[in-house]
Amino acid sequence: MQTVNIGFIGLGTVGCGAIALLRQNRELIERRAGCRLAVRKIAVRHPDKPRPIAVDPALLTSDVREVLEDPHVHIVVEVMGGIDPARQFVMEAIQRGKSVVTCNKELMAKHGSEILDLAKAKGVDVNFEGSVGGGIPIIQPLKQQLVGNRIRRITGIVNGTTNYILTKMTRERRELADVLREAQALGYAEADPTADVDGYDAMYKLCILAAIAFGSRVRVEDVYREGIGGVHARDIEYAQELGYTIKLLAIAQEDDDRLIELRVHPALLPNAHPLAAVSDVFNAIVVEGDGVGRVMFYGRGAGASPTGSAVVGDIVEIARNLCYNAT
Amino acid sequence: MQTVNIGFIGLGTVGCGAIALLRQNRELIERRAGCRLAVRKIAVRHPDKPRPIAVDPALLTSDVREVLEDPHVHIVVEVMGGIDPARQFVMEAIQRGKSVVTCNKELMAKHGSEILDLAKAKGVDVNFEGSVGGGIPIIQPLKQQLVGNRIRRITGIVNGTTNYILTKMTRERRELADVLREAQALGYAEADPTADVDGYDAMYKLCILAAIAFGSRVRVEDVYREGIGGVHARDIEYAQELGYTIKLLAIAQEDDDRLIELRVHPALLPNAHPLAAVSDVFNAIVVEGDGVGRVMFYGRGAGASPTGSAVVGDIVEIARNLCYNAT
Repeated sequence: MQTVNIGFIGLGTVGCGAIALLRQNRELIERRAGCRLAVRKIAVRHPDKPRPIAVDPALLTSDVREVLEDPHVHIVVEVMGGIDPARQFVMEAIQRGKSVVTCNKELMAKHGSEILDLAKAKGVDVNFEGSVGGGIPIIQPLKQQLVGNRIRRITGIVNGTTNYILTKMTRERRELADVLREAQALGYAEADPTADVDGYDAMYKLCILAAIAFGSRVRVEDVYREGIGGVHARDIEYAQELGYTIKLLAIAQEDDDRLIELRVHPALLPNAHPLAAVSDVFNAIVVEGDGVGRVMFYGRGAGASPTGSAVVGDIVEIARNLCYNAT
Repeated sequence: MQTVNIGFIGLGTVGCGAIALLRQNRELIERRAGCRLAVRKIAVRHPDKPRPIAVDPALLTSDVREVLEDPHVHIVVEVMGGIDPARQFVMEAIQRGKSVVTCNKELMAKHGSEILDLAKAKGVDVNFEGSVGGGIPIIQPLKQQLVGNRIRRITGIVNGTTNYILTKMTRERRELADVLREAQALGYAEADPTADVDGYDAMYKLCILAAIAFGSRVRVEDVYREGIGGVHARDIEYAQELGYTIKLLAIAQEDDDRLIELRVHPALLPNAHPLAAVSDVFNAIVVEGDGVGRVMFYGRGAGASPTGSAVVGDIVEIARNLCYNAT
């Protein structure tokens, strides 16, 4: 069996989740992939930092060049997050002929077309399944199995933190600030909750989905964005009396004139709508295509292990291509 | 742009759905695929039979050899159904180096491993996304995005006809025979409803999913199968009083000793279970993996246009491989 070598940049929650899953199911994954998968190097800021998984110290380096410049690394997994320097690292990896796996939603939303154009020119793959919906298969199904459809609309609950907060507010009739403090204590919300509460995270994810569905005409600046900051317990109560649930929705739709509308905002959903029942940290995305009708994808939208599952799926897909084309 | 030539065997509901979608979205699909897709020949039993779509008579032939022996046909789409002679045609197409797209669940359930082994030996693709869940992406996501997971259990509502019947029985408190007659009149059930009502259709689909999840140790004979014939209006009523819904479930699970259990039978689902809300002709499949947790895929499990969407997705995936490897 051939060996495909993987270099990680970053080893936070998702990186640890992916490596743990690769270890736990190594035999199964390699049999399915048809090749060996070897983690060759992991670039981290602080090699000595304690982590949830044990990692051979020889794999760790604080010098990202050891990943980017290693000619034996076939796939670079970027799980450091943020734009700078993640963007430069991803571009350099591609430039050097390496394929890339990333879950970096902000990066793909803002610079996806530049990254994918370079990847195309260099003949390498860039997979980013984990950037939307955690472990839920949505990006590749949209690109592949639903490729025959003109997509009319995508409607998603794509931010687990705000969905958890709204669910708690609904069930326990509490106010946002109160639930948010609890979510922060439980680790479901960041110390700085802006990205989630104000809808930035959902906006990035929406841009990624819309770019696939509608082509590269999608820009972050074109999204109408409103977070859940203005939702009060009494709004939820009134909505419930009328048979509605309040959810933070990310919506992308194309009208008959091919105009694209992109928006993230709290919305009233009739209780019978399939998305109304999506609670807690779960995510779900409804895709409406002219062939398939309505399909929905549902699951855990975040977390080490679900997002790790997406990263491993992306790695294996690239590894299969590499091995197939090498034979 | 290169051209990929497609030959159809059969032109029933699904074949017409696929060709209609290919036509309707031709420009979009070819741009996404990166190649031209040309339907070169369609083998049918009765070329003169009236069909829901207009087809150039020059494309139609009653001689299947014109599809199988045409060296210019790259992909054979088998949408005739049944085992004989579909199996021979599929095997011959592969033998001749052609890739195959099929929605034939009985064929893939009973002879899938033989077909896939030959395809592997000949270096061609066999895609069968439409064989389970109509247009819902489930087979490729299970193979690809979820590849890193040990699958614990798959639970599906995979037969639209029985789900429609059970939904009607529940909502209108009617008996099966009564609802079945109506479903037949509406075209939702076959004149001979055995395949659906007795659970054969669900059994085939379960075998296909289980073979992907658990490897090729899955045989149709090993499935416990019980249809909905024994479900009465009063069973549903009692279940409802206790907070349960009756659904025909297809379940595949692997225990800690790697023993696989396969069963199709009516089951009581708590109303809060995500599958309990799956009504009418809709299908949904819940996959539980050790990394991803629970993910659910939901949509229309049958019909010309949804299943046509799956066939087009399969065609494009193969076409991309063919063009990529030819450059």
